[in-house]
Amino acid sequence: MTIDQPITTPINGALADDPQQALMKQYDPRKILDHPEFKVLSQTEVDEYVAKGDKETNLACCYNEKKEVHLVRKPTLKPGKGEVLLHVRATGICGSDVHFWKHGRIGPTMVVTAECGSGHESAGEIVEVGEGVTQWKAGDRVAIEAGVPCSQPSCDACRTGRYNACPNVVFFSTPPYHGTLTRWHLHPAQWLHKLPDNVSFEEGALCEPLAVALAGLERADVKLGDPLLIAGAGPIGLVTLLAARAAGCEPIVITDLFPSRLEFAKTLVPGVRTCLVDMKDTPEEIAGKVKKAAGMDVRVAMECTGVESSIRAAIFSVCFGGKVFIVGVGKAEQTYPFMHLSANEIDLQFQYRYCNQYPKALRIVSGGLVDLKPLVTHRFPLERAVEAFEVAADPKQGAIKVQILDE
Amino acid sequence: MTIDQPITTPINGALADDPQQALMKQYDPRKILDHPEFKVLSQTEVDEYVAKGDKETNLACCYNEKKEVHLVRKPTLKPGKGEVLLHVRATGICGSDVHFWKHGRIGPTMVVTAECGSGHESAGEIVEVGEGVTQWKAGDRVAIEAGVPCSQPSCDACRTGRYNACPNVVFFSTPPYHGTLTRWHLHPAQWLHKLPDNVSFEEGALCEPLAVALAGLERADVKLGDPLLIAGAGPIGLVTLLAARAAGCEPIVITDLFPSRLEFAKTLVPGVRTCLVDMKDTPEEIAGKVKKAAGMDVRVAMECTGVESSIRAAIFSVCFGGKVFIVGVGKAEQTYPFMHLSANEIDLQFQYRYCNQYPKALRIVSGGLVDLKPLVTHRFPLERAVEAFEVAADPKQGAIKVQILDE
Amino acid sequence: MTIDQPITTPINGALADDPQQALMKQYDPRKILDHPEFKVLSQTEVDEYVAKGDKETNLACCYNEKKEVHLVRKPTLKPGKGEVLLHVRATGICGSDVHFWKHGRIGPTMVVTAECGSGHESAGEIVEVGEGVTQWKAGDRVAIEAGVPCSQPSCDACRTGRYNACPNVVFFSTPPYHGTLTRWHLHPAQWLHKLPDNVSFEEGALCEPLAVALAGLERADVKLGDPLLIAGAGPIGLVTLLAARAAGCEPIVITDLFPSRLEFAKTLVPGVRTCLVDMKDTPEEIAGKVKKAAGMDVRVAMECTGVESSIRAAIFSVCFGGKVFIVGVGKAEQTYPFMHLSANEIDLQFQYRYCNQYPKALRIVSGGLVDLKPLVTHRFPLERAVEAFEVAADPKQGAIKVQILDE
Amino acid sequence: MTIDQPITTPINGALADDPQQALMKQYDPRKILDHPEFKVLSQTEVDEYVAKGDKETNLACCYNEKKEVHLVRKPTLKPGKGEVLLHVRATGICGSDVHFWKHGRIGPTMVVTAECGSGHESAGEIVEVGEGVTQWKAGDRVAIEAGVPCSQPSCDACRTGRYNACPNVVFFSTPPYHGTLTRWHLHPAQWLHKLPDNVSFEEGALCEPLAVALAGLERADVKLGDPLLIAGAGPIGLVTLLAARAAGCEPIVITDLFPSRLEFAKTLVPGVRTCLVDMKDTPEEIAGKVKKAAGMDVRVAMECTGVESSIRAAIFSVCFGGKVFIVGVGKAEQTYPFMHLSANEIDLQFQYRYCNQYPKALRIVSGGLVDLKPLVTHRFPLERAVEAFEVAADPKQGAIKVQILDE
Repeated sequence: MTIDQPITTPINGALADDPQQALMKQYDPRKILDHPEFKVLSQTEVDEYVAKGDKETNLACCYNEKKEVHLVRKPTLKPGKGEVLLHVRATGICGSDVHFWKHGRIGPTMVVTAECGSGHESAGEIVEVGEGVTQWKAGDRVAIEAGVPCSQPSCDACRTGRYNACPNVVFFSTPPYHGTLTRWHLHPAQWLHKLPDNVSFEEGALCEPLAVALAGLERADVKLGDPLLIAGAGPIGLVTLLAARAAGCEPIVITDLFPSRLEFAKTLVPGVRTCLVDMKDTPEEIAGKVKKAAGMDVRVAMECTGVESSIRAAIFSVCFGGKVFIVGVGKAEQTYPFMHLSANEIDLQFQYRYCNQYPKALRIVSGGLVDLKPLVTHRFPLERAVEAFEVAADPKQGAIKVQILDE
Repeated sequence: MTIDQPITTPINGALADDPQQALMKQYDPRKILDHPEFKVLSQTEVDEYVAKGDKETNLACCYNEKKEVHLVRKPTLKPGKGEVLLHVRATGICGSDVHFWKHGRIGPTMVVTAECGSGHESAGEIVEVGEGVTQWKAGDRVAIEAGVPCSQPSCDACRTGRYNACPNVVFFSTPPYHGTLTRWHLHPAQWLHKLPDNVSFEEGALCEPLAVALAGLERADVKLGDPLLIAGAGPIGLVTLLAARAAGCEPIVITDLFPSRLEFAKTLVPGVRTCLVDMKDTPEEIAGKVKKAAGMDVRVAMECTGVESSIRAAIFSVCFGGKVFIVGVGKAEQTYPFMHLSANEIDLQFQYRYCNQYPKALRIVSGGLVDLKPLVTHRFPLERAVEAFEVAADPKQGAIKVQILDE
Repeated sequence: MTIDQPITTPINGALADDPQQALMKQYDPRKILDHPEFKVLSQTEVDEYVAKGDKETNLACCYNEKKEVHLVRKPTLKPGKGEVLLHVRATGICGSDVHFWKHGRIGPTMVVTAECGSGHESAGEIVEVGEGVTQWKAGDRVAIEAGVPCSQPSCDACRTGRYNACPNVVFFSTPPYHGTLTRWHLHPAQWLHKLPDNVSFEEGALCEPLAVALAGLERADVKLGDPLLIAGAGPIGLVTLLAARAAGCEPIVITDLFPSRLEFAKTLVPGVRTCLVDMKDTPEEIAGKVKKAAGMDVRVAMECTGVESSIRAAIFSVCFGGKVFIVGVGKAEQTYPFMHLSANEIDLQFQYRYCNQYPKALRIVSGGLVDLKPLVTHRFPLERAVEAFEVAADPKQGAIKVQILDE
Repeated sequence: MTIDQPITTPINGALADDPQQALMKQYDPRKILDHPEFKVLSQTEVDEYVAKGDKETNLACCYNEKKEVHLVRKPTLKPGKGEVLLHVRATGICGSDVHFWKHGRIGPTMVVTAECGSGHESAGEIVEVGEGVTQWKAGDRVAIEAGVPCSQPSCDACRTGRYNACPNVVFFSTPPYHGTLTRWHLHPAQWLHKLPDNVSFEEGALCEPLAVALAGLERADVKLGDPLLIAGAGPIGLVTLLAARAAGCEPIVITDLFPSRLEFAKTLVPGVRTCLVDMKDTPEEIAGKVKKAAGMDVRVAMECTGVESSIRAAIFSVCFGGKVFIVGVGKAEQTYPFMHLSANEIDLQFQYRYCNQYPKALRIVSGGLVDLKPLVTHRFPLERAVEAFEVAADPKQGAIKVQILDE
């Protein structure tokens, strides 16, 4: 199939009147949605692509406001100034992808109102470079940083280096911006990170959740020898476990409701101390178990569930002057034990995405300090992305990380 | 009147079998309560002391489990090894003193179960030094640090310098330990701080709430040029205002429900921006007023009320990456806007007393950076301490700081 | 006089093939030097402009590789995309301006090889805005941030917020880039800071040395109540004094070789403790005087001279765990007392320019926390800039800050 | 042999008039030296003890002001209040032990003026507990923290948790205090650390150099993913390497003059990148090699030699904003490249002993994060301690850590 009207996007800010708005225009989802080639695909149509062995059509996986997930056909793309065209080779499904599909929103501002491409945990190969791009060439293997801030000096967040706070960020897969779970993806050349030779596309894609964990551990100021609690052994909890062990935390206790997840944690980090939580346990009881497992109060708790009762358990687990660092998101209003926090000078901290973590993530993966490979428990080709979503959404499948691969 | 059996207490830990317990034995309140000279005084008896011009009897002001406050007679005291005997010259009444009187407890562990001497904001004059005390002599003027930790190397809190976490602390006026609102007081020689010549006893006593504010500002990492909210213009809020201005915060916005307090704040720090809160305002509305007054989001909020709605307003007032530092205490369980905290990486921190603040407090008061004198709005002699408590407890009196003075 | 060929420069990076190099091309000094209107002016020619009351010609003050300083005529300028044209209203002469004139270089890389416009401490008025500039309009009063980094995401320094480390920075007045001591100046719209109504152009220009002091104090982590030494009562030492007092340092000791400077310091901050240094004093002797003046070891020394013996004196003045923060520059190789540093865990830190300080500087000046006005001891019109340089370069004149004003 | 006059020392501070001086009196070396049982032993006398199988005599290894090292006989000891008597089971020889022997001093204040017991890297077994000691019993296995500070509240260093700055510290083996390379040793009960069951005496003794490394890494704020240089592959460099890798540094480059040491480093941490230094290399050349090996500028250099040229090489190896942390000690005056430090905002930090590191050290050794065992390359019985010293002092022997063991 031939697409006659490739979309060209300009370099970051260059042609816009207001540089801060330029990026948002550049990745305006309507360019895709209103394009004549855009089409929601039926299963039959997808099967036809498979039957033909078509590896060119720009398939992508979208969620929409009707809480559906399906494959779509996007137009052919052409890199603009400062951009590259990527062949996305591996993409993990994140809990937020599933949440957007199932619930149509996260918080009050991120709302699915149209077809929206999913996926932001991706790595790929450069296919073509746009004007002015000198640092990349076709064939280069890269991890894709999915959040692209405005990078303008007048933006306090960007100028001071805390770019996850940029109010004009384009975060691919957060509505309305299309995600990276697609075959061909346009990306600003400066927001890609070269994969070292010994790092695979799968690992490169996993650097996204690793970046989340690393941002949390960095801001939590976790250090060698810190006694640590990790609450929750889901994908973020497990990546946090790997990174926390690489950072020398000891002892590390991890909690979960499911014995199988704790067993998985043990295979990742044999020295971890596991602590099975029963739904009927009070937070104080959970904290009692945690302290017993650790042999002491912990100094920091990395809370990876966002669930109020788990956060409360974490609060009761840390020492005077300790910290509960909440990576997960949860219900909008939560009740905490104020007097216990106050009488023990316990800090509460929260994480919103990440900034400046990719180079470090790739360094420690390449250096062998963190082995992400065991986390991928399920793999699907791009044409079966819907099935991948279903597996990721079903707790009974026991998936840790589901990835979509495209050769 | 002659007291025949002076109480002698040993140096910190010296004669006890277990050094960590020694301090608690040393200041065991039963020594006072079970002493034959101890007596709850009727108003008539107090009047008699006044009529006689008695300045020797060891009067003290106690609260008890029946929610009464009254004067008592304590025995004469004799300094033990490492101790000094002090004539307490000025003592401020703290909100916690009133709270213990009216409610009989703070939190689950600090419970009034017997007559308990009040007062911990004190300065005085050394009358006599015990064995081995070489750094002090009679006549020396000192601020009294009311919390005396165990100082043992095996205590993690004490050994690492965060002694407000010491589990074996003797904090005078926190049950069961008798307070410093008394005429004669025994104190470990090492927990006193010399008053510079230009610092009065009243100011020395005010160094206690100043230490609270300084501990908060230090841990909140407040710096020159930080836009700051101070929530609540009560005594702690106002001391925090003085210290925050001395630290160069700008702009500073202060909130309160009472216009008179905001006017008082303006007289203390003319540059402060005041923000009157209406009981009907939502936290978001209060935050809107705060940001308007500041002309920007603030970076740090020093929350000095402990009231949930005020804490929520503070949360909505700070910028991405900002901090709400809660100095006040409040109801045991509180509900916070989790998703707003998470999406804006807002830190919550809490304060429990203070450590290592007195030398700094005295330095900045003596250096003229903080003028505490205007804060004392009411003064009473020791014999009228009950009346002082009544004024402090009655919001209609408009007292900022009530002090009891003894010449 | 009419200039027929205004120079137009493009928005930051927009039209260059390599965004990181774009800025350097944009402000390529050869555009000025090779322009037909460029001319080194004789005194007679300057006098003629004055006689005519000419206020339009783009005069500027240059140093060159022959160690001369003189006025030049630059072409008329036209703002490009993202740029504004400024009428520079006040410019202070910095020690580095004098150094470039007299020595032709600072360090191994900053070398004067041609006529180079001086001046980087400036404030001015916006005259015209280029394409896409919406945040400014003619008549706006601004402080000019003279160092313009590349702001590209692929630049580690810029992306992480430490933009003073940008290897591609254009710092006006650092060779080869022309400075801001000129009548009309083109500047990127995003690197200007609005002057509050109560801040004058003179104060706006002084925000540049204030930014240096603030960067030092921020990185030195100076806090309320810190005992501080300021070594050297020159312009940077005095600005640091003002800012350190605004930050609540106490006690503050300031040293200098000249009693007149110490007296000036006293008029700025009456509470400062002065310490006259004799050329014959050993560093240990100076430290003895400092400690005596402070009444204690200081925690931090802000070293504002860069002179080895003064740095050594600072090292001997600080307490165990203290810090010597060196703002000044000095000879390339210096010898320090290693064993004293080691046995006392003394940190040495150094400052290179500043980043993210202007908003804070303007806030504290506008808020009345720092009064910069007394620092300007000498004022000259633009046409007498050479004379201004001569005063600034002559210690006998006793100038603190010499400013060039243009109405 | 029977010793009739056991020495009894009191609990820390209890019986002294001045608590700050009590500790120094308690461990006054003259008590040993003036005791009738004290005797410098000839080799013949030592051989006789060996021949008899004597395991009771309190042998110790001393250096003296004549730059001799030999065994001595010390009196039998009896634990006082708050003390325990230890059987020292393993002691490592530190570079400082050798330095005191060969040079008679370190720095201006630590001078050998009499027979002085060596050794401060020790672990042992509790034999007897003194009055009031409840936390220990005979048979307990412990690491010995050799520096005992005064722990008085009036000592700023001790009260604020930075006890390595205590001016009244008793550091065993630093003149004049006798060291722990002895059979029977009296020690304050609170300055011992329980060995976990899976940690041997040898490892417990190695926790002392590990504590040095950990203190450096903690204060250097080294974190997961930090590119790191370790300058020098001697015992401290190698322990630092183990700890830095446990903390997740990557890449790590280690330098040394000897290929054999770099090979040893490789066996400890296979991922380390080694960099052989030639005596003729300039610091800039060494830095070039380091950056090439790392593939980037490093962020932190842990300098473990104290040699000026190595420190200079470290300075040239770190990035803008980087840090050179100097653990080693070296010549009293050293010359550094000031302008490079200044233009790159490079921090210099220094280490003096350690505080609060033992619990962490034991935790990470027990948790398997750091394997210290390979570091012990030579072992000697107590009676051959002099021979052990000779091996430790001879670079040709290639010893990493020489330990003296006593069964």
